[in-house]
Amino acid sequence: MDMFIIKNDGNSRKIIDLGDGIRIGEREFTIISGPCAVENEEQIELAAEALSSMGIKILRGGAFKPRTSPYTFQGLGLEGLRLLKNAGKRHNMKVISEVMDPRDLEASYDYVDIFQIGSRNMQNYTLLKEVGKFNKPVLLKRGMAATIEEWVMAAEYIASEGNDKIILCERGIRTFEEYTRNTLDLTVVPIIKELTNLPIIVDPSHGTGRKELIRPLTRASVAIGADGVMIEAHPNPCEALSDGKQSLNFEEMRAVLSDIEAIKNCMDNLNS
Amino acid sequence: MDMFIIKNDGNSRKIIDLGDGIRIGEREFTIISGPCAVENEEQIELAAEALSSMGIKILRGGAFKPRTSPYTFQGLGLEGLRLLKNAGKRHNMKVISEVMDPRDLEASYDYVDIFQIGSRNMQNYTLLKEVGKFNKPVLLKRGMAATIEEWVMAAEYIASEGNDKIILCERGIRTFEEYTRNTLDLTVVPIIKELTNLPIIVDPSHGTGRKELIRPLTRASVAIGADGVMIEAHPNPCEALSDGKQSLNFEEMRAVLSDIEAIKNCMDNLNS
Amino acid sequence: MDMFIIKNDGNSRKIIDLGDGIRIGEREFTIISGPCAVENEEQIELAAEALSSMGIKILRGGAFKPRTSPYTFQGLGLEGLRLLKNAGKRHNMKVISEVMDPRDLEASYDYVDIFQIGSRNMQNYTLLKEVGKFNKPVLLKRGMAATIEEWVMAAEYIASEGNDKIILCERGIRTFEEYTRNTLDLTVVPIIKELTNLPIIVDPSHGTGRKELIRPLTRASVAIGADGVMIEAHPNPCEALSDGKQSLNFEEMRAVLSDIEAIKNCMDNLNS
Amino acid sequence: MDMFIIKNDGNSRKIIDLGDGIRIGEREFTIISGPCAVENEEQIELAAEALSSMGIKILRGGAFKPRTSPYTFQGLGLEGLRLLKNAGKRHNMKVISEVMDPRDLEASYDYVDIFQIGSRNMQNYTLLKEVGKFNKPVLLKRGMAATIEEWVMAAEYIASEGNDKIILCERGIRTFEEYTRNTLDLTVVPIIKELTNLPIIVDPSHGTGRKELIRPLTRASVAIGADGVMIEAHPNPCEALSDGKQSLNFEEMRAVLSDIEAIKNCMDNLNS
Repeated sequence: MDMFIIKNDGNSRKIIDLGDGIRIGEREFTIISGPCAVENEEQIELAAEALSSMGIKILRGGAFKPRTSPYTFQGLGLEGLRLLKNAGKRHNMKVISEVMDPRDLEASYDYVDIFQIGSRNMQNYTLLKEVGKFNKPVLLKRGMAATIEEWVMAAEYIASEGNDKIILCERGIRTFEEYTRNTLDLTVVPIIKELTNLPIIVDPSHGTGRKELIRPLTRASVAIGADGVMIEAHPNPCEALSDGKQSLNFEEMRAVLSDIEAIKNCMDNLNS
Repeated sequence: MDMFIIKNDGNSRKIIDLGDGIRIGEREFTIISGPCAVENEEQIELAAEALSSMGIKILRGGAFKPRTSPYTFQGLGLEGLRLLKNAGKRHNMKVISEVMDPRDLEASYDYVDIFQIGSRNMQNYTLLKEVGKFNKPVLLKRGMAATIEEWVMAAEYIASEGNDKIILCERGIRTFEEYTRNTLDLTVVPIIKELTNLPIIVDPSHGTGRKELIRPLTRASVAIGADGVMIEAHPNPCEALSDGKQSLNFEEMRAVLSDIEAIKNCMDNLNS
Repeated sequence: MDMFIIKNDGNSRKIIDLGDGIRIGEREFTIISGPCAVENEEQIELAAEALSSMGIKILRGGAFKPRTSPYTFQGLGLEGLRLLKNAGKRHNMKVISEVMDPRDLEASYDYVDIFQIGSRNMQNYTLLKEVGKFNKPVLLKRGMAATIEEWVMAAEYIASEGNDKIILCERGIRTFEEYTRNTLDLTVVPIIKELTNLPIIVDPSHGTGRKELIRPLTRASVAIGADGVMIEAHPNPCEALSDGKQSLNFEEMRAVLSDIEAIKNCMDNLNS
Repeated sequence: MDMFIIKNDGNSRKIIDLGDGIRIGEREFTIISGPCAVENEEQIELAAEALSSMGIKILRGGAFKPRTSPYTFQGLGLEGLRLLKNAGKRHNMKVISEVMDPRDLEASYDYVDIFQIGSRNMQNYTLLKEVGKFNKPVLLKRGMAATIEEWVMAAEYIASEGNDKIILCERGIRTFEEYTRNTLDLTVVPIIKELTNLPIIVDPSHGTGRKELIRPLTRASVAIGADGVMIEAHPNPCEALSDGKQSLNFEEMRAVLSDIEAIKNCMDNLNS
């Protein structure tokens, strides 16, 4: 693979510093959580309040939503980003949201702490090059049918423009199996760590599409050495405008967090 | 599927009229050919001359190339489009080229007769909506792991913005088989015709990645009822800057054309 | 690939001679048809009568059925083979049926003209070696997730035991696409002819799982150079005990046959 | 799914008792290890000695090997089973080996404590029904392209004949990704526990095909709640007659065991 900037050269690994002591890729295990989409002020405020009270420091919420049909809810756009940022501010959380249009990056820049690039845009090289020009961390999700090489080279595209603050995120690949929405490919965690110097997190919500599987797959993600997880949580999953089936409520989220803590401790002992 | 505009309603099918008597989706079988990438003036002139002399009326040539690595040839950009358009003009050919950046559409508009959207951008909804605002035909390739529903809905995205001059193009899907670059899924041809009112063509070059397979797969494409094919041809495939292995030389192209004519006649008799 | 016996050495191709002037792999295009399963004497007699009257010379009918659930109809076993053979005899047809148990081969030998090995058993090496010891043609279906190399080597297993009367049969592979039962991979037809000296036929019934797709895919199979097709037909598809959705009635079968004849003529002219 | 016998009815889960206090599916985590193939007496003795000294109680070793080519090492057959059993006996280990031929079961019965059915034979219903008639535990590997439903129903086939002592084993599925031999699908662990009452173990050796990935994937398997792992280990992996690339040496195996112990303790605390 034609990698230069993000290659694992055996030296120190990349750490993404978001300020206020929040770092991704360090020994800390990063938890990103929030609803699939920002729906309104109350919803995102409820999410930020509950999640921050559990110690979660990064809030997710989609404002520009890539939906299969043009006739379903497309997100609140910049107004959604504003609501997200304000909720984050009130609760001392950093925020992340998906960007899809290179022309929106300038305007989005002030609202988010991490640009997210979704699986459908993993090989949208225009967008990759554009986020590569900003001084802002980027979370790059794996494409649904992207090989490891294609994914890693998509990250190199961003880095080649100057921005190497990249977090990779495994979110499941498309296979013949129909029982789950995608097949979460945890094997990539050690592979990415061998090949690159970037942190990698796992998204068990999209990776399975079924809320009852989030907890066991989060356990496995910690054990396999991921640097974090991104998990959808919603004040009321049953009424979510999108992805309700794969969203946890806050009580379920709390159970996941206590799993993470216990297993992370165990892994730290093992690796020390 | 949530289709309204491009749905097959049992009435007449969509015809894409490019002017000068060149129409896609009519009883005529459309052949699009040319090199993977416009490399220089001489190369594209040689291609246009040879292909037009065989009766081919639409010239392809990439100017903006979506490459896996940021360090390989990325295409000549707008200069490539200019070379392509001039070659087309000299030989009375319409031209098609891939667009990747919504900000380039305005500038590309005058150079191409058909905007092509590649598989990596099939769910780049920003780009889909943007080409939907132009009065210019769009060829939409199927994504590597796109279901038929996702593909059709991507076309509906374009149409929902006002532009229903859409041609679908099957170019192979990603499977476990490694012998060919992709698995060409010809079954979609009758399915697309059943579901939508759009023309569909087949790209056996990307669909197989092996030049020796282009001829038999073109035969099958005609027989199954495709409205056309898109085939890579190059004055000197061995020296092509990209995709040389799947490019025909002009003599091979001629053999393919005589196949098409014979089988198309046969099919017309069968269907009359 | 580690092939010796079935390798294409550039010399003459293998012809499977079933006697009575019925040969597979010659210039003739072979049509195998009949119901998914032999259900009773009347059903198989009706099928044999109708199909033979159209000129079809090989009758299919399952007696040992590999079903996903142990609680669904498993076929009539040897009694089914007896009914099949008698129906074939009355109408001068050769018969083919799937074998699954190496211990049944001896008993099945007298009933069938071709042993069929189904996709689920493509790498059942015990069974492959066992049919390799008989002097009886074998039709070997491609496994659902078998690479071309694995398929070809499975044929070599049979040949390595002494029996090289092998017909390969493409029946669709398993992919992410859910619209059809499988993804029919017609590209293998020219590949198999390049790699091996064996005849190859196509099964559009299992390959698509939808009866309305059988006709266009048969057209494509003839055009791409297959040596034949295997198509499910049933006196009353709606009441079939298995695979009714992908079975033609006899009138539909007749339409397919006239397609085959026209396209085969066209191809013969092209190749002469 | 049409399950009756192996269905999770909310009551107690199935425990497979091998005698001498060795049980699978209990709170204990089962480790099965040994070489891919029994090669000779010395090799299997070295393996049994080393592995038993680490506390491993079940020895694996292939005697009948399903190989892609008929011309590569096919295993030592019954002689291999004899060597395996003797090595096990000397070191108080139970033994497991793959069976492929229904006619060999009788002869194999006395040599092995668990019949293994490999992925290529997961839908070899003849073999499934036959092992279902014996009073002997069966380890059923998932087919390379088997859906969860097909896998579970294959287990039900065995159970429907009277033998419900079944252990399921995930060993990776076939996807587009070529970096690893298969894609290990750990998500099935909680799914199988939800659907059935059977124990499930994981095979990270075949699941990845790369020895450096076995350790992280074993960690994840324990954390996600698997009932055990099956890991290839060889006295000298570089000289193994098959699968050397995915075999651990004994020192590496020891490191994996200490991981398992630590994480299993952690999980027990979490679940208590």
